[in-house]
Amino acid sequence: MKDLYEKADILMEALPYIQRLWGKHVVVKYGGSAMKDEKIIHTIMQDVTLLKYVGVNPIVIHGGGPEINRMLEKLSIKSDFHNGTRITSAETMEVVEMVLAGKVNKNVVSMINSMGAKAIGLSGKDANLIKAKKKISADGVDLGFVGEVVSINTKLLLELTSTGYIPVIAPVGFGDDGNSYNINADTVAGEIAAAVKAEKLMFLTDVDGVRMNPEDKDTLISIIEVDHIYRLIEQKVIKGGMIPKVMGCIKSIEQGVSKTHIVDGTLPHSIILEIFTDKGIGTMVTA
Amino acid sequence: MKDLYEKADILMEALPYIQRLWGKHVVVKYGGSAMKDEKIIHTIMQDVTLLKYVGVNPIVIHGGGPEINRMLEKLSIKSDFHNGTRITSAETMEVVEMVLAGKVNKNVVSMINSMGAKAIGLSGKDANLIKAKKKISADGVDLGFVGEVVSINTKLLLELTSTGYIPVIAPVGFGDDGNSYNINADTVAGEIAAAVKAEKLMFLTDVDGVRMNPEDKDTLISIIEVDHIYRLIEQKVIKGGMIPKVMGCIKSIEQGVSKTHIVDGTLPHSIILEIFTDKGIGTMVTA
Amino acid sequence: MKDLYEKADILMEALPYIQRLWGKHVVVKYGGSAMKDEKIIHTIMQDVTLLKYVGVNPIVIHGGGPEINRMLEKLSIKSDFHNGTRITSAETMEVVEMVLAGKVNKNVVSMINSMGAKAIGLSGKDANLIKAKKKISADGVDLGFVGEVVSINTKLLLELTSTGYIPVIAPVGFGDDGNSYNINADTVAGEIAAAVKAEKLMFLTDVDGVRMNPEDKDTLISIIEVDHIYRLIEQKVIKGGMIPKVMGCIKSIEQGVSKTHIVDGTLPHSIILEIFTDKGIGTMVTA
Amino acid sequence: MKDLYEKADILMEALPYIQRLWGKHVVVKYGGSAMKDEKIIHTIMQDVTLLKYVGVNPIVIHGGGPEINRMLEKLSIKSDFHNGTRITSAETMEVVEMVLAGKVNKNVVSMINSMGAKAIGLSGKDANLIKAKKKISADGVDLGFVGEVVSINTKLLLELTSTGYIPVIAPVGFGDDGNSYNINADTVAGEIAAAVKAEKLMFLTDVDGVRMNPEDKDTLISIIEVDHIYRLIEQKVIKGGMIPKVMGCIKSIEQGVSKTHIVDGTLPHSIILEIFTDKGIGTMVTA
Amino acid sequence: MKDLYEKADILMEALPYIQRLWGKHVVVKYGGSAMKDEKIIHTIMQDVTLLKYVGVNPIVIHGGGPEINRMLEKLSIKSDFHNGTRITSAETMEVVEMVLAGKVNKNVVSMINSMGAKAIGLSGKDANLIKAKKKISADGVDLGFVGEVVSINTKLLLELTSTGYIPVIAPVGFGDDGNSYNINADTVAGEIAAAVKAEKLMFLTDVDGVRMNPEDKDTLISIIEVDHIYRLIEQKVIKGGMIPKVMGCIKSIEQGVSKTHIVDGTLPHSIILEIFTDKGIGTMVTA
Amino acid sequence: MKDLYEKADILMEALPYIQRLWGKHVVVKYGGSAMKDEKIIHTIMQDVTLLKYVGVNPIVIHGGGPEINRMLEKLSIKSDFHNGTRITSAETMEVVEMVLAGKVNKNVVSMINSMGAKAIGLSGKDANLIKAKKKISADGVDLGFVGEVVSINTKLLLELTSTGYIPVIAPVGFGDDGNSYNINADTVAGEIAAAVKAEKLMFLTDVDGVRMNPEDKDTLISIIEVDHIYRLIEQKVIKGGMIPKVMGCIKSIEQGVSKTHIVDGTLPHSIILEIFTDKGIGTMVTA
Repeated sequence: MKDLYEKADILMEALPYIQRLWGKHVVVKYGGSAMKDEKIIHTIMQDVTLLKYVGVNPIVIHGGGPEINRMLEKLSIKSDFHNGTRITSAETMEVVEMVLAGKVNKNVVSMINSMGAKAIGLSGKDANLIKAKKKISADGVDLGFVGEVVSINTKLLLELTSTGYIPVIAPVGFGDDGNSYNINADTVAGEIAAAVKAEKLMFLTDVDGVRMNPEDKDTLISIIEVDHIYRLIEQKVIKGGMIPKVMGCIKSIEQGVSKTHIVDGTLPHSIILEIFTDKGIGTMVTA
Repeated sequence: MKDLYEKADILMEALPYIQRLWGKHVVVKYGGSAMKDEKIIHTIMQDVTLLKYVGVNPIVIHGGGPEINRMLEKLSIKSDFHNGTRITSAETMEVVEMVLAGKVNKNVVSMINSMGAKAIGLSGKDANLIKAKKKISADGVDLGFVGEVVSINTKLLLELTSTGYIPVIAPVGFGDDGNSYNINADTVAGEIAAAVKAEKLMFLTDVDGVRMNPEDKDTLISIIEVDHIYRLIEQKVIKGGMIPKVMGCIKSIEQGVSKTHIVDGTLPHSIILEIFTDKGIGTMVTA
Repeated sequence: MKDLYEKADILMEALPYIQRLWGKHVVVKYGGSAMKDEKIIHTIMQDVTLLKYVGVNPIVIHGGGPEINRMLEKLSIKSDFHNGTRITSAETMEVVEMVLAGKVNKNVVSMINSMGAKAIGLSGKDANLIKAKKKISADGVDLGFVGEVVSINTKLLLELTSTGYIPVIAPVGFGDDGNSYNINADTVAGEIAAAVKAEKLMFLTDVDGVRMNPEDKDTLISIIEVDHIYRLIEQKVIKGGMIPKVMGCIKSIEQGVSKTHIVDGTLPHSIILEIFTDKGIGTMVTA
Repeated sequence: MKDLYEKADILMEALPYIQRLWGKHVVVKYGGSAMKDEKIIHTIMQDVTLLKYVGVNPIVIHGGGPEINRMLEKLSIKSDFHNGTRITSAETMEVVEMVLAGKVNKNVVSMINSMGAKAIGLSGKDANLIKAKKKISADGVDLGFVGEVVSINTKLLLELTSTGYIPVIAPVGFGDDGNSYNINADTVAGEIAAAVKAEKLMFLTDVDGVRMNPEDKDTLISIIEVDHIYRLIEQKVIKGGMIPKVMGCIKSIEQGVSKTHIVDGTLPHSIILEIFTDKGIGTMVTA
Repeated sequence: MKDLYEKADILMEALPYIQRLWGKHVVVKYGGSAMKDEKIIHTIMQDVTLLKYVGVNPIVIHGGGPEINRMLEKLSIKSDFHNGTRITSAETMEVVEMVLAGKVNKNVVSMINSMGAKAIGLSGKDANLIKAKKKISADGVDLGFVGEVVSINTKLLLELTSTGYIPVIAPVGFGDDGNSYNINADTVAGEIAAAVKAEKLMFLTDVDGVRMNPEDKDTLISIIEVDHIYRLIEQKVIKGGMIPKVMGCIKSIEQGVSKTHIVDGTLPHSIILEIFTDKGIGTMVTA
Repeated sequence: MKDLYEKADILMEALPYIQRLWGKHVVVKYGGSAMKDEKIIHTIMQDVTLLKYVGVNPIVIHGGGPEINRMLEKLSIKSDFHNGTRITSAETMEVVEMVLAGKVNKNVVSMINSMGAKAIGLSGKDANLIKAKKKISADGVDLGFVGEVVSINTKLLLELTSTGYIPVIAPVGFGDDGNSYNINADTVAGEIAAAVKAEKLMFLTDVDGVRMNPEDKDTLISIIEVDHIYRLIEQKVIKGGMIPKVMGCIKSIEQGVSKTHIVDGTLPHSIILEIFTDKGIGTMVTA
C-alpha cells in the first residue's frame, strides 16, 4: 500500500508542471553523442509521447553526426572539420541530407508513432520550413554548404502541432540559390523555439548540466540565471565545451524562449525527469 | 538515481492508460460515507484535476447524506428511512436541495478550482439537466419527494466538458410538476454516464471492491465480468450491501458504459491509482 | 378590429428597442424587498425569457435577504446589521451561501426554464466567476465574511450567453483564502454589467425611480443624466435611501455600462415595460 | 397604469408564438391586389422586419400585376389572359422581368432596409435560384413564356437567411434554353416554402380567409384541417376564387410545409396579427 | 506536337499571374459602348468565369446606356445630357433603375451562370450596397436624380465572394431620402474596388489604352506610372476623352487599388489577355 | 492579334476541364525511366503547381530506381531482381529508404516549392501514412523487405491538401514489425488514389499510352474503356510491358478512382496537356 501512495505522489508531483506547460510548446534537441543507446532513445521518445498526451506540444530537432560519419566512411568520402564544424562539400552535403532526412529522421518518426503518437518528419525543404543561406566563417575559411537560418515557416509548425502532430525536424536548410545547407542542429532548435515562442527548449547532450565543480556530480546547478552564467564564465567555472552550450541557452532566452535546459540525454527518461519532477536532473537556464 | 528511474517508470506506467482514455468521459460518483476526511477528499479532487489535464473529461456526481443529516438535526426536522431511502417531505426536500446544491456542491467546485481546473456546479434544475418524476415505491410506501430520472440534458454536459469545464452535479431532479426531487446519487451517476457514453463510471465508496472472501483483503478481484458477478451472487460470495453496488455497475454497463469500478474512496488518490496503475486498487466490472 | 390594431401598434412600439438591444447584454438585479409576490416574480421571469427570445442576452443577479432571514431564524442564529450591511459570521455565511446558491438561485433558474428558456445557476465559486476578498469597513468595524469583488470571469459569462443560456447569479464570492464571501448584490450586478460591457443594467427595487417630488407619483423622471443627478442631490431633491441607488447607477456608467435603470420590481412585467415602451415606467440614468 | 399592463399582456401573448417559430422559416407571398396602399405595405414590411429581429427567418415572394399592366400600357403592348394566366410574348416577358426584378423587387427591398433589416432582392436568375421550363397548358393553348418551377437553389436561401439577410424574390424563372419565364407567384412561394422546409407559408391576399358563410365576416374559420376543406368544397361552402387559394395551401402542406395561412393583406400588420395573437385574423390550414 | 508545346507554354505564361492574383479581388467595369456585340460579351463573361475558377474573386459593375436609351425612346421620354451626364428626372430614373437592375443586370448574371459560375445580381438597394446622395453639379445645373456614392456595404461583397459567388452590380444608389440615384458606373467601380481593396480595377472601354501617338496603334503604352500620366497630359499627348479615363484610374490608385487597367472591351477575351499574358493588350496604370 | 486570340482560345479550352476537376484530387505517379531530364521534370512540377493554383488537389508519388542503383553501386551493394522486383535485403532497404525519402523526395519537394506552391514530403512512416507488411511472392521466392500496402492514413492527406499543401510521397511502407518496406510506386499511387477517392490517377511513364499498332504513333487511343482493354489483351494488341500498366489502371478504377491515365512523362508539360486540352496526349482509361 505504501508503494501505491508513492505512485500517487509521483503522479501528483507532475500535476503543477503539466498545468504550467499545458498548450505550450517544448522544443527538444536530441542527437549526436547522446544518441547512442537504442533503449535510451526509446525512453526519450516515450517522454515525447507522454508530453503530447498531457497537452504539451513537443517539437523534436535531431542531429545525426555518427550516422553521417558511418555513411561517409562507407562511401570513402573524406570530411574535414574546422573549429568543430564539418566542411561540407557538395558530395558530402548529398550524404548529410540523405542520412538526416531519409534515415535518422524517419527512425525517430517511426519510434514515436509506434508509441501511439503521430509524428511527421520534416526537413527544411518541406514547405520551406527552414530557409537558409551560406554561412560565412569569421576567419574566412570556406565551409562549403554549411548554412545559417534565414527564416522559419512558423505557420506550418503551428498547424501541425495544433492538429495533434509532433514535428520531427532534420536540420537541413534550403537556400534561394537552390542548394541544401547543413546547419548546426542546436542553432536550428534555438531558432525554432524562438519562432514558436516555446516555453521550454531542452538540449539533450552527454553531460548532466552546469556543475560548480566539473569533477563533482553533486555540484550540479539545477537552476541558473543568465547573469550568473556570465559570472561563472569569468570565474572559469564554466569553461571548454560547456561554453557554447550555455551560450546557446542564453541566445534562445534572448530570442524569447522562457526557459532552456541542458540535460543528460544518455540517461533514460531525461525529459520527463527534468520537466515533471521538483528537482529535475539537469540545469535550467532562465532570464 | 534509482529513485528517479522509479519516478519515470511510474509516469510511464500511466501513459497507455492516458492514451486509452484520451478525449473520453469518466464519471465519478463520490459521496456519503466515503466523504469524511477533508485531506482525502482533497486528494480525490486532485485526481479529478489531473484527469482533466491529461485529456480526459471527468464529471463528478456527489452525495451528501451526512451534511443533510446535520442540517436536518439543527432544524429539528425528523426524517425516516424506508429500505435505505430517505422519506422526503416537502420540508425535508427544501433542506436536501439547499445543502446539496448550495453547500456540498459549491465546496467540491471550489476545491477543484483551487487546484487550477475549472469546475462548474450544477443541480438538476440548471438548464433542465435532470428531469425527474416521483418514484413509486414497489411496496406502495409513499416516499414523498423521492424521484427517478426521466431525462438528462446531455448537450449541456458535452458543451461544458468540450469547453474545458468539469461539471460537478448535485443529484436533485426537477419535475414537470414544478417540484424538486431527491434522487439516489448512484442512479444519477449511472444515467449521466450512459448519457455521455462514458468510458468509465467510478463509484467511490467505503469498501475496496468485490472480494472472494469478504474477510480477506487479499482476495480482492481486480477485474470481473458481468456473468461472473451473477455466479458469485448465486454462490453467496457477493451478498448484503455489495449486491446493490454491483447491480448498479451492471445496469450502467447495460446502458452502454464501457467499464464501471468500485473503489475505496477513503483511500487517498483512489481514482488515479485505480485508473493509471497496472494493478489498480479496486474492482473493475466489464461486459 | 380596433383592438387588433392596438395590439399591432404595441408590438411595433417594441421594434426599435429590440433593434437597438439586439445581441447586447442586459443585466437585471432583482431581489430583496421587490421579490415578494410569486405572481409578480413570475412576470419578471417571463420578461427575461422574452428578452432572450428577441435576441437580447439577459443576465440575472438575485438577492435573497428575506429567505436568509427566515433560515437564520429557524436555526436561531442572530445576525446584526451595520449601516445596512449584515455582519456575517462563519456560521451565518454558511447559511447565506446555502440559501442563496441552493435555494433562491435554483428557484429563479427553474422558473425561467419552465417558460422555455435555458437558465444556468451560478455562484461566485463556479469556474471562479466572482473572485472576492474581505471588505474592510471604512469605520473599522469587522463585518466578518462580507466581501468585495476582485475579478469577474467574463469569459464564462460570454460563453454561456452566446450558447443560448441565461446566467442566474447568486452574489457569493470566493476568496483566495478559501473562504466564501457575502457581497452586496447591487455591487455584483454593477461589476458584472461592467465586465460584459452591458448595454443596460436594471435595478428592480421597490420604488418607481427618481421623483422630483417624492410624494408625487406624477413627478417621476423618465430619463436623467449623471450631472443632473448630482445637482438634484445638492438640491436635496434626491435624498435618503435613493442616494445609494443613484450612486450605484452612476458608478456603473463610469465603468462603461451605457444605461442604468431604477425600476419598481413590485409591478408586473416591469422589465419589458421599461425597455420596450416609449415612455417606460422607471428612471433611466445615462451619461 | 391599466394601459401599461395591457401593453405587457400583448407582448406576452406573442412570447409562445415567438418560441415556436424561433430559428424557423416563414415564407410570405404578397402581391397583386393586396399591394395597393403604400401605408399598409409599409406595415407589412415592418412585420417582416420584426419577424427577423425576434429570431424568425422570413422570405418574401412578391407579385406585381398592376405595375406590369401599367408599364405594358405605356408601351402599348397588348396582353391577353387565358384562364387567369397572362399569355406572355417575348416582348411582354421583357417588360414583366424588368418591372418585377428592377422595380417592384427593389422597392420592397429598400422598404425593408429602411426599417433596419437587411433585405437582398433576387430573381430566379441569381445563382440559378429558380430553374424553370415552359409550362404546357392543359388545353393546348400556348401561353408563351409562362413557366413552371424545375428546381430551387435552397443552399443560396439558407446561406442568406443564416447570415442575417431577408431574401426578397421576384417570381421570374430561368430556363436551360436561356429564356426567362413568368411564373405564378403563389406557385413560387409554395415551392420555396417546401424547399426551405418552412414552418409557415402565408398568402397575403385581398380576402380575410375561409368563411362558412361568404357574406358573413363573423363566420371566418381561424383554423381548418385539410380534410375539412375537402368537405367544405363538396358542400359548396368553399367555391369560386377561394378554391385555387385553398388548393395552393393544401399542396404546400403536402410538400412538407407545416402550416399555411390565408390572410387579408389589405389590413395593416396582417402578418404579426395572424402569427403573434391567439386568435389571428385569417385562416390557418394544417394537416 | 509543336502545337501542343505552344499550348503548354501559353498555360504556363498564365501561372505567375494566377499566383499573384490568387485570393485577391479584381473589379471589372464593363458597359456602354463596349457592350455591343453579343458574341464578344460572351467571351468577356467566360473570362470572368475563368478568373473565379483559378482562385481570383471578380466583381462586375455594368453600365447600360444604350438599353436605357432604347427604353426611354419607346416610352417617349426625352432625356438631356449635361457635360456627358444624363439629367435624370423622376420619370427617367424609374426607367434607368428598371432597365439596369431588371434587365441588363439579370442578363449579365444569367450569362455568367450558364458558364458554370454562380453570379448574383445586386443593385445599390440590396442590403444597402450603395448608399448615395444627390450630386451637386459644379456649375449649379440641377442634374435631377444623379447621385454620388456615400458608402459601400463591403461586408456583403466579401461574404458573397468568399462563399463562391460573383457579384454583378447595377450602378444605382439608394439615398437616405428614399430616392434611387443614377450614378456613373466608372465611379461606382472605383469606389467598390477601393472598398474591397482590389488588386486590379479594369475599365473595359472602346479604346485600347493610352497611346503615345493616338493615331498609331503601335504606340500603345503597356504600363504607365501615375507621374508619367500627368506629364503626358501636360504635353497634350493624353487629351480629350482619354483624360477622364486616366483620371479615374489615378483616383482609384489613390484610394488603395494596386493597379488599374484601360482595356478595349470590344475585343474578345480582353480581360484574360490583359491579365494572363506577359504583354497584355491595354494600358496598366500603377502608382 | 491573331496570336493573342489563339492564346485566349487555349486558356478557354482549359476552362471546362478546370471546372470539372475543381476541388477534386489528382494523383500523379512519376518516376523511374521517365525521370531523367532535369528540364522536363521541371515542366512536370510546373504542371503540378498550376493544378494546385486552379483549385485542383494534386498528390505526387515518385519512384527513384536510377538514383537507388547509383547509390547501391557506390556502396558496392549488389541487388538482384526477380520478375522486375528488386530483392531487398536489410542493407539494400536502408539505402532504398535513404535515397527515396532523403534525396529524391526532398528534390521534388524543393522543386515544387521554388515555383511558389507549398509541397510537403512524406514517407510511409510519417504519421503512419503507409502501413505495410511483407509481400509474399506467388512463386515462393523471398523478396526480402518488399512490402504491400495494408492501410493508408487518408485523414493526413486530406488535412494537408485542404490546408493548401501538395503531398509528395516516397513509396516506403512501415510495418507493425518495425521494419521499413520497399513498395512498388505504381501500387502506392493506386492505393492512395483509391483512399482519397481521386478523380484522376496519372501514370507518367516512358511510353505515350495504348496504341492499336505499337509501331505507329498515330494509332494512339485517347480514351478507352475497361472492357475494351480486356478485348485488346485477348487480341494481343496490348502485350508485354503494357499489360501491367493497363492492369494497374483497371485495378484503380475498380477501387473507385474515376479515371486513370497513361501518359508519356518524358514530354514536357505532359500533365496539363493530357488534362487541359481536348485531345490529350496519352490514353485515358475509364469504367
